[in-house]
Amino acid sequence: MIKFPIPTNIIQSKIKKGYKSNCNKGLAFEDEINNANNYYNNHNIALIYKRPTPIHIVNVDYSKNMITKAFFEKQSTTDYNGIYRKKYIDFEAKSTYNSSLPLHNIKSHQIDHLRKVEQFDGIAFFIIKDYRTNDSYIFPFSLFDTFIKNNSRQSIPFNYIKENGVIIKTNNNILDFLSAVDEFYFSS
Amino acid sequence: MIKFPIPTNIIQSKIKKGYKSNCNKGLAFEDEINNANNYYNNHNIALIYKRPTPIHIVNVDYSKNMITKAFFEKQSTTDYNGIYRKKYIDFEAKSTYNSSLPLHNIKSHQIDHLRKVEQFDGIAFFIIKDYRTNDSYIFPFSLFDTFIKNNSRQSIPFNYIKENGVIIKTNNNILDFLSAVDEFYFSS
Repeated sequence: MIKFPIPTNIIQSKIKKGYKSNCNKGLAFEDEINNANNYYNNHNIALIYKRPTPIHIVNVDYSKNMITKAFFEKQSTTDYNGIYRKKYIDFEAKSTYNSSLPLHNIKSHQIDHLRKVEQFDGIAFFIIKDYRTNDSYIFPFSLFDTFIKNNSRQSIPFNYIKENGVIIKTNNNILDFLSAVDEFYFSS
Repeated sequence: MIKFPIPTNIIQSKIKKGYKSNCNKGLAFEDEINNANNYYNNHNIALIYKRPTPIHIVNVDYSKNMITKAFFEKQSTTDYNGIYRKKYIDFEAKSTYNSSLPLHNIKSHQIDHLRKVEQFDGIAFFIIKDYRTNDSYIFPFSLFDTFIKNNSRQSIPFNYIKENGVIIKTNNNILDFLSAVDEFYFSS
């Protein structure tokens, strides 16, 4: 999830009200990914969806079929999954303004999940956006996993991500992250 | 979704209050599938999750981080997906007390979605429960698709599902639907 726990529709509501915060950036990034997924779906390239934000519902007004009390829950897995080139694909989007990606907002259950995806022969990665340059990168989970196993750092330097990941180009007016996936996972 | 739009935690709340309805059956069926998925996950057999119920959020009390007004939205795809035997897997659970499965509660966008999953070489099917007998079946989407293209009926007779699908056995105290998937998709 890009800006947990605030979902898109709340962010949109904030934007309508002139609310200024980093959420707008998060929304723009999420929209970039959603737009790409829509393009891939419409052009029969891939089938990738964002998982809905999980909500714990406490009260419902059944006369209006309306939820009157609920709380945000943590996503138990990652935000996006689907199928591409006959393979299961699963990823998490993260963004930062810093010169390194803080690890504290990548949850251990997400790491466990992505590790399992790789063990099951799926494609697991992060899409990481550097707001200083507006560049985004595919950062394969295998590289992430190697990094955290060999380092005690609390963040991954962006230089490491840039040198080892794949930059995502804009093609057909979308953030064409599957071309970067092709480059890392499917080029021989 | 088994009993759209009422999610599990509402049903559980109803049960606690002694609420009597078909929801309890829906919950039991959903629990059977969730228990199976937990077993598969814990035993490194498959990685399958239920997608959260999508909610449209209208109001949030930010001081309590609490949603105070929201509505249920339709699931844009199906309820379950994941990875099994290196393949993308995607399915919808349906149940009925009738001698045939009504088609009106299988939405056209779900049909389109499952058709695409097959085109992308994923495994797409329904798990269908017959409450008259408490038996559940794997009914592959390809068979469903052939049926609806060749019939103008508003429902699929259960006899057709039983003759062409695969009955799901209970193994290790779970509704072992992946054994039925093995039988249909992986046996040579």
